[in-house]
Amino acid sequence: MSPLEIPERRLIRTLRRFGGKGKGVIRGIGDDCAVIRIDGKLCVLCQDAIVEGVHFSFSYMKPSYIGKKALYINISDVLSMGARPLYYLVTLGIPERIDSCTVKEIYGGMRNVAKEFNLKLLGGDTVSTEKDFFIDVSMVGELIGEKYKGREMAKDGDYIGVTGYLGESAFGLKVLREGNIKERGVRRFVERYVNPRPPYETWKELMKHDITNAMIDISDGLLIDLERMMEESKKCAIVHYEKLPIPELLKENSLEELALSGGEDYQFLFTFPDSKLKKVEELKRRGFEISVIGEVVKGRGVKLIKEGKVIDYKKKGYDHFLVE
Amino acid sequence: MSPLEIPERRLIRTLRRFGGKGKGVIRGIGDDCAVIRIDGKLCVLCQDAIVEGVHFSFSYMKPSYIGKKALYINISDVLSMGARPLYYLVTLGIPERIDSCTVKEIYGGMRNVAKEFNLKLLGGDTVSTEKDFFIDVSMVGELIGEKYKGREMAKDGDYIGVTGYLGESAFGLKVLREGNIKERGVRRFVERYVNPRPPYETWKELMKHDITNAMIDISDGLLIDLERMMEESKKCAIVHYEKLPIPELLKENSLEELALSGGEDYQFLFTFPDSKLKKVEELKRRGFEISVIGEVVKGRGVKLIKEGKVIDYKKKGYDHFLVE
Repeated sequence: MSPLEIPERRLIRTLRRFGGKGKGVIRGIGDDCAVIRIDGKLCVLCQDAIVEGVHFSFSYMKPSYIGKKALYINISDVLSMGARPLYYLVTLGIPERIDSCTVKEIYGGMRNVAKEFNLKLLGGDTVSTEKDFFIDVSMVGELIGEKYKGREMAKDGDYIGVTGYLGESAFGLKVLREGNIKERGVRRFVERYVNPRPPYETWKELMKHDITNAMIDISDGLLIDLERMMEESKKCAIVHYEKLPIPELLKENSLEELALSGGEDYQFLFTFPDSKLKKVEELKRRGFEISVIGEVVKGRGVKLIKEGKVIDYKKKGYDHFLVE
Repeated sequence: MSPLEIPERRLIRTLRRFGGKGKGVIRGIGDDCAVIRIDGKLCVLCQDAIVEGVHFSFSYMKPSYIGKKALYINISDVLSMGARPLYYLVTLGIPERIDSCTVKEIYGGMRNVAKEFNLKLLGGDTVSTEKDFFIDVSMVGELIGEKYKGREMAKDGDYIGVTGYLGESAFGLKVLREGNIKERGVRRFVERYVNPRPPYETWKELMKHDITNAMIDISDGLLIDLERMMEESKKCAIVHYEKLPIPELLKENSLEELALSGGEDYQFLFTFPDSKLKKVEELKRRGFEISVIGEVVKGRGVKLIKEGKVIDYKKKGYDHFLVE
């Protein structure tokens, strides 16, 4: 878990200047995916890597799950733009200690996920490394509707929704690290960490009924990703602590902060207009895991409200929030 | 230069089974790029990485040149399909010892190349690694003509052409490694190694006059890349040793094998029909560096002919040819 020299947001700001709008570029650097127009079609592109020791460990995860994760995180990015994943390419960086069976199992995991999401592998590269094992996936998707679901699209008066539960993955990792895997009720969290499949069924309903304005996948934690969305939308989010889908086991263990700032949830965080509230309530009744956790108002930033009071959460270290 | 556990060709064969043709896929895994149809447009996609210690070294190359190389090798792949590069994404794997100035210079190098080729940066990822520094670039291009220039498209009776000179880059690397940088006439070779810009001007002429049938960029050495082309085309190549564009300095130093099997030439190897020979001769007269080195006939493999006799070159180690 070595820290990154260049904080990602600063880097993105630098890169944006490099990027430029240019021909066919609808949305450049700074979102989960870029959006480009190719002929009549709007396509999205993204590229996300996982590195051993930073994003996964062979001691916690079977090789096939490592392969699955490399695809899931990119699928999550594509879906969060309101696009359907179509193609992917993959570069593997392989140190000598990794044998060919392991590599095959990793490809097998990717293959299974690709099958489920109807994704085609188009190529990529394999390179040898001295020490680090990494998987870098690029993905192409096509937009489903007319418009992409950007993080800059939250509107005044929108509600804020989130799929599934928060902090599950971070708690799962904690359990694995501390070796408490046999404790009651923790299996589900470990499973969420090792198999971060995006909530595809719920996403399909959100798309089908054209519910969302802005959307983002929660990769770095609810608060930081919501703050990013508000920064891009130039709005303020009011979040009601009591409405957050925090698993009971986290509360019992006083680990609520994992739900606020634990990374790798890969749930969708989205805003939607008042006119869609009825439909969202209906989806919830039909069993889709959606929580309405707050509202978008004028202003900037994120206000977390607990028992009627604004909680001051402060930045601690790089891109990491903690509740005081 | 640690050897790759899984020989690339075997891996490609395995991956091809994973890939599948599927909707919109015109050409899948196995060429310099994949070709897909998006709406009415034919696009190409590729992804190629460079790793410190394997593909570059900070002791031989300025950071900006490392960034340039990461783009050049992908541009070369796109051009060799007969496509114009449009967009790229880039993942950087950064160990702690690499400072942010170095990273900025690398991005600067990429930016300059992108400007020259009118490429737009669309995103990517930055990840921290323990030891290895790598740059992984994915690229999207659009086909210029109706058909892509695949390595499977060599025809009976085609001539075989190659741009520029062979073995320059491998010789340049040898000079750098042995510290003979001050010797007479070697600078050009070192330059070719540190700055492997594809022969874009010649390529434009090849495209403009629709000269080529099959095309490939020489990344692993003339013979091995030609063998790949013949394997895919199910043809045999006759190569006349005397016609090879081998630099004089290589001959003087008895290093001709670098021209046959030295990697990273990033010249274009292509076949073209008899009807285009006149045009090729005209381009040569106009100063474009093109050599006609042989012909395509029925059969399989590559036959290298020197002084009227077939030379037997044998495989030595992984994907590496040597003249006996």
